[in-house]
Amino acid sequence: GTTTFADMYFHLEEEARAVEETGIRAVLSRGLIGLEEQAQKNLEEAVTQAREWRGRAGNRITVMLGPHAPYTCPPAFLKEVVAAAKQYNLGIHIHLAETADELVEIGKEYGKRPVAYLAEQGIFTRPVLAAHAVWLDDGEISYLGRQKVAIAHNPSSNMKLASGIAPVPKLLAAKIPVGLGTDGAASNNRLDIFEEMRTAALLHKVQTSDPTVVPAETAIKMATLYGARALGLGDVTGSLEPGKSADLIMLDLNKSHLTPLHDPVSLVVYAARGSDVSDVMVNGEWLVRDGRLVRWDEEEVIGEATRCVQSLVKK
Amino acid sequence: GTTTFADMYFHLEEEARAVEETGIRAVLSRGLIGLEEQAQKNLEEAVTQAREWRGRAGNRITVMLGPHAPYTCPPAFLKEVVAAAKQYNLGIHIHLAETADELVEIGKEYGKRPVAYLAEQGIFTRPVLAAHAVWLDDGEISYLGRQKVAIAHNPSSNMKLASGIAPVPKLLAAKIPVGLGTDGAASNNRLDIFEEMRTAALLHKVQTSDPTVVPAETAIKMATLYGARALGLGDVTGSLEPGKSADLIMLDLNKSHLTPLHDPVSLVVYAARGSDVSDVMVNGEWLVRDGRLVRWDEEEVIGEATRCVQSLVKK
Repeated sequence: GTTTFADMYFHLEEEARAVEETGIRAVLSRGLIGLEEQAQKNLEEAVTQAREWRGRAGNRITVMLGPHAPYTCPPAFLKEVVAAAKQYNLGIHIHLAETADELVEIGKEYGKRPVAYLAEQGIFTRPVLAAHAVWLDDGEISYLGRQKVAIAHNPSSNMKLASGIAPVPKLLAAKIPVGLGTDGAASNNRLDIFEEMRTAALLHKVQTSDPTVVPAETAIKMATLYGARALGLGDVTGSLEPGKSADLIMLDLNKSHLTPLHDPVSLVVYAARGSDVSDVMVNGEWLVRDGRLVRWDEEEVIGEATRCVQSLVKK
Repeated sequence: GTTTFADMYFHLEEEARAVEETGIRAVLSRGLIGLEEQAQKNLEEAVTQAREWRGRAGNRITVMLGPHAPYTCPPAFLKEVVAAAKQYNLGIHIHLAETADELVEIGKEYGKRPVAYLAEQGIFTRPVLAAHAVWLDDGEISYLGRQKVAIAHNPSSNMKLASGIAPVPKLLAAKIPVGLGTDGAASNNRLDIFEEMRTAALLHKVQTSDPTVVPAETAIKMATLYGARALGLGDVTGSLEPGKSADLIMLDLNKSHLTPLHDPVSLVVYAARGSDVSDVMVNGEWLVRDGRLVRWDEEEVIGEATRCVQSLVKK
């Protein structure tokens, strides 16, 4: 049921080709570890890849630069990333304040907190998608709001890794675009944005002892419109309106666990799951129809994935 | 995918008939509000119902007495419930320490905490299934462990109602049988025990800042063996072994979100969902085969449920 995803990882070209072939929309960034010997070369390659791939696949591919995190990118490297991002008009995708350890580590290394450290390297002069943003104080939240930084909230991952609970109600109050993410398979397993909607809605209620925070309406916006804004795609997708691309999903409501239907928004957030999605359209093209992939044979894909994994595990 | 449920509600006979007709296994208790004028009459009726229904439907029905909660049941009434439970050899299903408000209320009324209040009425001389058990201190956890009280943990409900987070790692360490529950539709919506397994596994990791607590193995036991023990059915169900009833489910693993399969236990807890269950057997009888209800026409049930709800909403 996902029509757009953002990812930071190491195989951008392979990913971009998969995006081209599958018909999905994506914001890709090659992860850059500034501590590696070949960091400079990787940055140059990332810029080349960004220039090559952005706008491809009928404009379904957006590219950002992906300096991995404050603790893997020293100041000089981050400054180079910012300069390249400015030169080629690219956004930045970075992990930020994911764990308490990061606060300790950045504090020891630079005598400040992660937000201040990134600010000092000029990161926030670019459009930034910050993943996690768990360990923020009120001043930082207000600062990130003023800098128009966007945040990817990954509740399941933050819970599974025991990273902490992001201050989502405060982030939303600061008008920060907070989108929902799953994080990778290792710390989520389910990769189902319906799961993240429900988890986000529930987690912040118990965290704040307030059952009215992150209501279903907000959770669904985080999964759609706020998510699109967080990726800089607010004019392209995230809602069904004239001028935007036709990205949409349909749910099969004729199921016992979706009966009765009183309030569609509450139903989608609290009761539905990814397997209820019957149809998916991206950029005006049906990718799933009646629960079946249009471009691919799902059985075949599952079979090939299984074979690949088995051969990898044997190595 | 659920083979056994416990419920405390007001229409025990209708529920018992539904259990008979559907083939599921259940532990039923009629909710008793001790503050009502007809409390005494309701208790007598509950005892009559318990004697009439227990062991019915091929021994699939167990009955307990269901004094609703400390704050809805005064001392004299609870003592009568305990006497009746003793006379007719019945267990007790009660809500316990669900919210911080309950602590305040019971404190004001009786000058003690809910566990001490129930203990004083003799509740723990009977086998007890305590729902929620969120607001417990270490002494209470140790006491409940010694009294062999069982606990129904309802993570989604506790989160949605912002009740708090039950001290599950400590409960498990005290050898308390902790089963997983959904609570009712109003505070859960999804009623999918796979969701509760995943939520329990994730919630206590982030709560304790320890990613090793409530591992997948424990979550799956809470949904099966510990759940059966919590219901006093540890000899009947909860695991596949000689002498127990044939209660089992099968999952259809040939799905993209369940590929690849490295570790079946982790897959079931973190990646699978109720809709992956293809087959369900209770007491040796197939109730679901290849994703279809055997005894019922699901479309017909959905249609009738929808019509019932519409007519209720109109009233």
